[in-house]
Amino acid sequence: MEKLYILKFLICVLNNSEKIGDFLDPEKFEYFERLFHPKSIAIIGASEGSFFYLLGPMATGYKGKVYAVNPSRDSIFNIKCYKSVLDINDDIDFATVTVPAKYTPDVMRECVEKGVETVHFFTSGYSETGTEEGKRLEQELLKIARKGITRIIGPNCMGIYCPESGLSFMPGFPKKPGPVAFIAQSGALTEQVIYSGRLRCVGFSKIVSYGNAIDLDNPDFVEYLTEDPKTKIISTYIEGTKNGRRLYETLREAVKKKPVIVWKGGQTERGAVAVSSHTGSLAGSGEIWKAALKQIGVLNIRDLENLIDTFLVFLNNPSPWGRRGLIVSFSGGESVSETDKAVEMGLEIPLLSKETKEKIEEMVPAAGISTRNPLDIPSAFFRFANIAEVVKLAAAEDNIDFVIFEMLDRFRSVSKTFRNFQWYVNLRKSIRDAANYIKKELGKPFVMAMLPAFSEHEAVFLRKFYTTRGISVVPTMNRAAKAIKRIIEYQEFLDKQK
Amino acid sequence: MEKLYILKFLICVLNNSEKIGDFLDPEKFEYFERLFHPKSIAIIGASEGSFFYLLGPMATGYKGKVYAVNPSRDSIFNIKCYKSVLDINDDIDFATVTVPAKYTPDVMRECVEKGVETVHFFTSGYSETGTEEGKRLEQELLKIARKGITRIIGPNCMGIYCPESGLSFMPGFPKKPGPVAFIAQSGALTEQVIYSGRLRCVGFSKIVSYGNAIDLDNPDFVEYLTEDPKTKIISTYIEGTKNGRRLYETLREAVKKKPVIVWKGGQTERGAVAVSSHTGSLAGSGEIWKAALKQIGVLNIRDLENLIDTFLVFLNNPSPWGRRGLIVSFSGGESVSETDKAVEMGLEIPLLSKETKEKIEEMVPAAGISTRNPLDIPSAFFRFANIAEVVKLAAAEDNIDFVIFEMLDRFRSVSKTFRNFQWYVNLRKSIRDAANYIKKELGKPFVMAMLPAFSEHEAVFLRKFYTTRGISVVPTMNRAAKAIKRIIEYQEFLDKQK
Repeated sequence: MEKLYILKFLICVLNNSEKIGDFLDPEKFEYFERLFHPKSIAIIGASEGSFFYLLGPMATGYKGKVYAVNPSRDSIFNIKCYKSVLDINDDIDFATVTVPAKYTPDVMRECVEKGVETVHFFTSGYSETGTEEGKRLEQELLKIARKGITRIIGPNCMGIYCPESGLSFMPGFPKKPGPVAFIAQSGALTEQVIYSGRLRCVGFSKIVSYGNAIDLDNPDFVEYLTEDPKTKIISTYIEGTKNGRRLYETLREAVKKKPVIVWKGGQTERGAVAVSSHTGSLAGSGEIWKAALKQIGVLNIRDLENLIDTFLVFLNNPSPWGRRGLIVSFSGGESVSETDKAVEMGLEIPLLSKETKEKIEEMVPAAGISTRNPLDIPSAFFRFANIAEVVKLAAAEDNIDFVIFEMLDRFRSVSKTFRNFQWYVNLRKSIRDAANYIKKELGKPFVMAMLPAFSEHEAVFLRKFYTTRGISVVPTMNRAAKAIKRIIEYQEFLDKQK
Repeated sequence: MEKLYILKFLICVLNNSEKIGDFLDPEKFEYFERLFHPKSIAIIGASEGSFFYLLGPMATGYKGKVYAVNPSRDSIFNIKCYKSVLDINDDIDFATVTVPAKYTPDVMRECVEKGVETVHFFTSGYSETGTEEGKRLEQELLKIARKGITRIIGPNCMGIYCPESGLSFMPGFPKKPGPVAFIAQSGALTEQVIYSGRLRCVGFSKIVSYGNAIDLDNPDFVEYLTEDPKTKIISTYIEGTKNGRRLYETLREAVKKKPVIVWKGGQTERGAVAVSSHTGSLAGSGEIWKAALKQIGVLNIRDLENLIDTFLVFLNNPSPWGRRGLIVSFSGGESVSETDKAVEMGLEIPLLSKETKEKIEEMVPAAGISTRNPLDIPSAFFRFANIAEVVKLAAAEDNIDFVIFEMLDRFRSVSKTFRNFQWYVNLRKSIRDAANYIKKELGKPFVMAMLPAFSEHEAVFLRKFYTTRGISVVPTMNRAAKAIKRIIEYQEFLDKQK
């Protein structure tokens, strides 16, 4: 590890480049590497009530040592309990504290004495309660920490999930890492993001729920994630911050290296009140945040569904992105309505050339189709499976930058009705073929829209089928367009910087 | 039937009331009753390619006679084929025509001669193609129809689905009727609505896909549905109309009797172009439509997800609706973000009184909760199942008009971890109890928000569990708030009329 550290440092010094070190000092980078990959962890206050901290890492495949600390128990879940972290005859890299707030200063003193590098406090009951005692306790923890090397995550939060090392705060989190990082003050929200991501085949590099942030704060994590080679997209839910200037500057630097998505909570006065009783932060004006984030090219999203949509659309597609889209649909009505909405949000749905239109009309049964864009060609799907050729042809037009392709979840039942399962297999193959061609040969993004309608079972199967094969699937054409719009704005920001 | 007709007519004349007849003449009402409940139907041009018209009614439990007409076949799916509708030795109430457009005038002549009351043309290739021949053919069909009593649905559409009679255009449509009517020019869209409705436990009274509408048009159906006692909500997707004034006046009258939801396609210039190649309609300016619809209290929605949300929220709740909501959540982060969005759309999330807040704090473990509104009380769920009492208490506050309750799909796995399935059963019972109390005792709407996150399987189960027990379930708090907002505006419109 030390050699690697020196090597990285030298490279940075020699290159004076945009690699590790121009933004985050190498020592700090190494600290975060150890934080997310601890060799040993301790759960202080381990009990059935905090089962997720004991069972989480085991279920997620954590390979290091897990120690339980609880002075009033001999064992929990067959894991031996130590009376104090000081009794453990091993180094402790990371400790999670779940004891009531009033006992936490004592626990903190022991951790500092032990030389625990990071202490995460699950415990709540600090400044978020609005009480003087809560605020005082927080400051006391920090004061104790500063006597040693110990850094603090929290209090009032869930901590860290890093599938690569297996560190985790809930059994049921996926073992497989992915390219997305998400950090948030909120605890339940990080869980929602992880679970929703899992269901929609989005994997995570690092997740942090950092709560009241009395020591390590949002910008610390963003700095690290900016340099982290395992993270391709940084996303964060922010309610407020103690140092707006630093957060702003950190985000601005981060955007230069990778896309950054911010979900800001507490944008209204009423929302800000909810913030103060959630994490004790000052929320700041929504408009100021919005304008500031836009100025530095941060993607602004406001809910979980759109967050996951944006991950998917970003990750599986080539750049650059442009505003002119082809819509391929099975429903004339929906394609009209979606064209409206796409145009209203600033996208363009250009008419196809006469030549392409005529070629398509030769290829597709004429009944009930539209071939101008949106392409509304239901008959093509039911009668033959070389739909790929039609879509490729239209997507190749010069004035098309991306494709939104509506997929239905009822072809399996159609194939069953006709006992022609091969048709269904061919259709899927044909669509994958079209997507690959459009992305790889044409270099244009391809997003599939699929709302569970006929059969939830089939929709889930199809979503997994296509997503695991590298195709972005979102539930509706409108949500596809929204995600695309956001990414185009990011693209346009980058272009302006050149 | 005749006696009933006379009786209804007399009642109308005597009462001069808002019953059948003040708006739609009884003869027309009777015609539509027969249209949706035909005693015998014929599929003209029946073939494997139009399997859905032959198999649809059978699968949906149609009790009348189904005749197949195809001069070049002896039978289809073991159903005897007649050479012509004229050869059938029975009255035909309703015929569906699937032969190519050029043969349709001949078919129409035979239907008129036979005295078929309604002919529906699945066939496309008319004015929507933009050709003179297409327009001419349409006019010819109409001219032939006017020589007899025959009315036309279409052409270029899917026709009628009425679960009460079993009339249907697709096997797989549900047999069970419900309170919602949906009419649209589009075909695929009506299918999407039916399938999505089925998955989310919304049932339909009547569905019409009416295509180019050369004879029976949107206002005809709206007039009937306004009087139809089986329809509680009228919804319609409209791309354009030949008689804007009539449509407007019909919708205005309809709103006086039941909620009317309009989904308008082709609101942008580019969308309007898509409309013309879809159903050959003139779309009209989006802004004019929007303003006109708002003026008469029509609920304006723009996509399938929001349409189904609005059905669910409307159907399962008491009125009146007010703007002040209680948000109950499991995630501080989401509750903050949802409070923002609710406030921005004009809803209010009032702080709970000090008294209620204190009472709740006595009832709920203090760790990591917020009790001001949004109520963020995760600890309450995991430690005991009488969450009902907390929610009832907060909902009873004078300044609360409705409740949005976020539900998670991971309690089943929690109950499994602890092998305490009874806790999970009690929790569900407790939530139902709260919902019932709030709706029946307090007379306030209660909407559940549940995004599949942990387990799609469990989310589907829970959604069905609660929806079939009369609780509205939508996927996110934001979509709940949007549906509530729309209904409040309708409520405010009604209030102004008083």
